[in-house]
Amino acid sequence: MRHLTLALDIMGGDNGPHIILSAAFKALNEFPQLHLIFCGDEGVISSWLKQHTSISLQRYSVVHCNQQVLMADNPASALRHKKDSSMACAIRHVQDGQADACVSAGNTGALLAMACSQLKTLAGVNRPALVSSLPTAKGRKVYLLDLGATVQCDAQTLLQNAVMGSVLAQEIAGIERPRVAILNVGEEQIKGPAAIKQANALLAANKQINYIGFVEGDDIFNDIADVIVTDGFSGNIALKSCEGLVKLLIEQIKRDAQRNLLSKIMAKLARPLLRRLYLRVNPDQYNGASLIGLRGIVVKSHGNASDEAFLYAIREAIQEANRQVPTKIKDKIENLLMERS
Amino acid sequence: MRHLTLALDIMGGDNGPHIILSAAFKALNEFPQLHLIFCGDEGVISSWLKQHTSISLQRYSVVHCNQQVLMADNPASALRHKKDSSMACAIRHVQDGQADACVSAGNTGALLAMACSQLKTLAGVNRPALVSSLPTAKGRKVYLLDLGATVQCDAQTLLQNAVMGSVLAQEIAGIERPRVAILNVGEEQIKGPAAIKQANALLAANKQINYIGFVEGDDIFNDIADVIVTDGFSGNIALKSCEGLVKLLIEQIKRDAQRNLLSKIMAKLARPLLRRLYLRVNPDQYNGASLIGLRGIVVKSHGNASDEAFLYAIREAIQEANRQVPTKIKDKIENLLMERS
Repeated sequence: MRHLTLALDIMGGDNGPHIILSAAFKALNEFPQLHLIFCGDEGVISSWLKQHTSISLQRYSVVHCNQQVLMADNPASALRHKKDSSMACAIRHVQDGQADACVSAGNTGALLAMACSQLKTLAGVNRPALVSSLPTAKGRKVYLLDLGATVQCDAQTLLQNAVMGSVLAQEIAGIERPRVAILNVGEEQIKGPAAIKQANALLAANKQINYIGFVEGDDIFNDIADVIVTDGFSGNIALKSCEGLVKLLIEQIKRDAQRNLLSKIMAKLARPLLRRLYLRVNPDQYNGASLIGLRGIVVKSHGNASDEAFLYAIREAIQEANRQVPTKIKDKIENLLMERS
Repeated sequence: MRHLTLALDIMGGDNGPHIILSAAFKALNEFPQLHLIFCGDEGVISSWLKQHTSISLQRYSVVHCNQQVLMADNPASALRHKKDSSMACAIRHVQDGQADACVSAGNTGALLAMACSQLKTLAGVNRPALVSSLPTAKGRKVYLLDLGATVQCDAQTLLQNAVMGSVLAQEIAGIERPRVAILNVGEEQIKGPAAIKQANALLAANKQINYIGFVEGDDIFNDIADVIVTDGFSGNIALKSCEGLVKLLIEQIKRDAQRNLLSKIMAKLARPLLRRLYLRVNPDQYNGASLIGLRGIVVKSHGNASDEAFLYAIREAIQEANRQVPTKIKDKIENLLMERS
């Protein structure tokens, strides 16, 4: 890994700055070439750093911010009135070229608004997309986008999302010709809303993309596709429904394991089995949704991320910076525009 | 239970008529007042019945059909050209009043088209909805609709779905004042597509419905709501994504249990724990999506249902017939129209 600088929004998220600082500390240990910029309340950051003196002063810098974007803040209002927030500060460092990427666990809507306003979308990209990966059969993963950046997508936006998801799968997952699909309510060509049918025709005619057609919700986990494209409304609902189900199952296992002495013993004996299952579906390891299509790298961590989960988001940002994902997307979108003209 | 007659589409589904006949046999044993009409190929049905002579001849009748709707059939073409199919036959028995309800595991699109055409929607209902229940925390269940009958719903259709879901939760789950929510990408009033915002305003102003506002995907399993309303596109994707995830987890547990001798022993010891978990998420027991809003009861079983799963669908049809769900929906929709006028 080359020298990299990441700007972190220390104040974002539900679990307090110490979670993010603890993840930062782990990241500095894991990546010797990493430099971090801590954007947030200097007092809070300093008092944490005093208890963790093993971090070399050369490895980080602190930028004090007077404001903090709250989870309940309206995105438009945050954009207008919170210019001195830790979130705006982290994005500004990417905009100025002082950081290669930024990571925030704060308010998604505000992060999207600020990132669009400060970084701007790449030429030829209508709207940025929120993308994340999910586990599939055979231990692989699938990129799902959009997850909520654009609630309703037209056919062109879906096509651009297919290109952008394809770049991520190539660069981050190392898949040579990623299989790209559109999420729909059936595999037949005649199904679905108009935008999806139009996007289907555009993708089928496109030579850049390895397009495989429509897939259904249960195919997300089937290892049928490497990239699944959908509008922000359905994508968000698919992702969150699955998260909700995983939470329900984990609670169920925990409660079952406490039913009686026999259950406790069984759970103890089966712990490695249950642990492997948990690790497989644990949303933490799929943490780090990226906001792509912008002139800079912005990674969004879950609001209630643990330090391990936030560390995954940092790793994602590092990978995208190393692979120069925005440049690759820019090139592919340019090819797309040329193909059309 | 009073005397009830159900018409079964014996030829629908991926797993062959014997699965459905085997479920029928179990249902006749479970419900002594039940009479069944088997719609399908007489030869196939007779040869099965010959091997199962313990069923009294008074408990069933066979109606021979020359045609069968295939899974790949286009709904419009099936509607036009397969009037002598087992599916059309089962629905016709409901239309004629010879059956109190019908159950099919066949092509969903064709079932929807035939049911709409033959049974018609109730007065005041724009479109029928496909509804099913999912497990939630605390061992309860939530009704989710629409699951794909109407890909894009306007505000009025969402409002009607809220009324219909509410009736199901009252009559089938026995909940006095079901909590009704709209599925959205955030809980704030300003979020989501126009139809959803309009439906939110309509529901907030409506006195019949115990409306609690917007919920997100992960709230499906939170026991926050008893009924969650969404358009057919998102509902289908939410349901199928969760089904896909459950399949992935079950496969994972099975594979893990076969890794080595230690894993095998662990899995054996933990079997009751894993079994409880499996039963909790096993889609079979949530099988039986109902097509509601029609002048008759139509229950759709999963195409690849096992006999146990098909039996759940039969039980659902019996419950709806016993509680006279269509009449209750008709009354509620009439109240809704009166409130507005």
